[in-house]
Amino acid sequence: MIWCRFEVQGKSSYGMVEGGRVTQVWGNPLREYAVTAHSYPLDEVKLLAPIRPAMLYAAGPNYRGHVEGMAARRGSPPSYPDRPSPNYRSVHAIIGTEENIVVPKDSAGAVQPEGQLAVVIGKKASKVSVDEALDCVFGYTIGNDISERPWQQADRTMFRGKNCDTWKPMGPWIVTDLDPKGFHIIVRHNGDVWEDFSSADQIWDTATWIHELSKYATLYPGDVLWMGTQGADGDMVPGDTIEVEISGIGTLRNYVVAEE
Amino acid sequence: MIWCRFEVQGKSSYGMVEGGRVTQVWGNPLREYAVTAHSYPLDEVKLLAPIRPAMLYAAGPNYRGHVEGMAARRGSPPSYPDRPSPNYRSVHAIIGTEENIVVPKDSAGAVQPEGQLAVVIGKKASKVSVDEALDCVFGYTIGNDISERPWQQADRTMFRGKNCDTWKPMGPWIVTDLDPKGFHIIVRHNGDVWEDFSSADQIWDTATWIHELSKYATLYPGDVLWMGTQGADGDMVPGDTIEVEISGIGTLRNYVVAEE
Repeated sequence: MIWCRFEVQGKSSYGMVEGGRVTQVWGNPLREYAVTAHSYPLDEVKLLAPIRPAMLYAAGPNYRGHVEGMAARRGSPPSYPDRPSPNYRSVHAIIGTEENIVVPKDSAGAVQPEGQLAVVIGKKASKVSVDEALDCVFGYTIGNDISERPWQQADRTMFRGKNCDTWKPMGPWIVTDLDPKGFHIIVRHNGDVWEDFSSADQIWDTATWIHELSKYATLYPGDVLWMGTQGADGDMVPGDTIEVEISGIGTLRNYVVAEE
Repeated sequence: MIWCRFEVQGKSSYGMVEGGRVTQVWGNPLREYAVTAHSYPLDEVKLLAPIRPAMLYAAGPNYRGHVEGMAARRGSPPSYPDRPSPNYRSVHAIIGTEENIVVPKDSAGAVQPEGQLAVVIGKKASKVSVDEALDCVFGYTIGNDISERPWQQADRTMFRGKNCDTWKPMGPWIVTDLDPKGFHIIVRHNGDVWEDFSSADQIWDTATWIHELSKYATLYPGDVLWMGTQGADGDMVPGDTIEVEISGIGTLRNYVVAEE
């Protein structure tokens, strides 16, 4: 099943996507909803970020290639994580597919993408076992963890290096009933493939992250976990287009613009 | 004016506090509200955390004494911040006054308090000047940034060291129309004064933080900023009571318990 949030005639709601059309629902697929008789061609609606989470967790480094790529960028030896330690991202920085990523005037003038599998929690999860963990998942979408490496390196926190307005593209929609181990994730910069990797190469898999987080912090329906990226990509500048495609989900496409 | 959230007869709502009574309001004082004819003695209602923020920002080190105290704890030289770099805290970890702080079974068995001024944003703030910044404030409350120092030091992020369930007490209520420079902040452990400091000693003041954050990330009504703490306090163990009192606001009181 494919769930989206969309805007039509100035109103936003959730919708079910099938055969190139969106059927509007009232309510929220994570709690209660009712299917309406309204449906629209997909290309006549504006897709919104498919969820507005209370908490947006980002896996710390979760692919060996990202640890190594970032270390090479800094010119220091790689430091692999010894346990899953998530960070948080700003929920206010979330935008949807086809929206603009804004490069601040006082930045170095470029930003960097990180294509990520995004996991949407569907059930309250406290102290769940690895075996039970995936039962708490509502579905999967795509995130692009936009970063500004000089700020990320210079600052004590990732506030400015990761969380400026518009820097958390997510979408295009949420797909349910998928296996999180087999995703094929591709990052394309102006059509060129920058990364091409498998979620099977995660240091810790989705079920292990949910298990570990839920030992300490209850996860709630609508919370979202971004699962980390492979590699350490180059610079995007105003005028560029960035796409993250995940097999079985779709493509998240955004445009880089300069702050006015 | 004093605003609270409270629960009575199983229902939660906002209320106005005056003369030992709470007058219930419909709606939300940050947007629209209506005063009702219902009022209750303060000691007959359960106070809830006075706000459920979308984003809970925590000032990085914002008092020189905290930088020095933490450095002494680690046995390393103090490293003063060169710019305001906030971190985030889990909004799911927020509890109200008089609630229990739970020490996890697999922790070292103790947690540490950090008494903090909490600033509640009342107006959307993007790229505001220092002079305009305090116009965006709705009011002030009290936070206790519960920490587990061994985890904070060992982990790559502050997830487990700062954000376990119940570790973000906030309250007892929000007071409007105060000057954030003159607060007197006292931390009491089982009645003994552990810290006694002034918000005038912040490295960067409230207006500067709002100005700096709003350069990069729009602040929204209901977002909350915790403004840092002085010192580096000792251990709290199950059975202890911890209070943070701020002049002109009130007292946030919580009880330390062991995980069952």
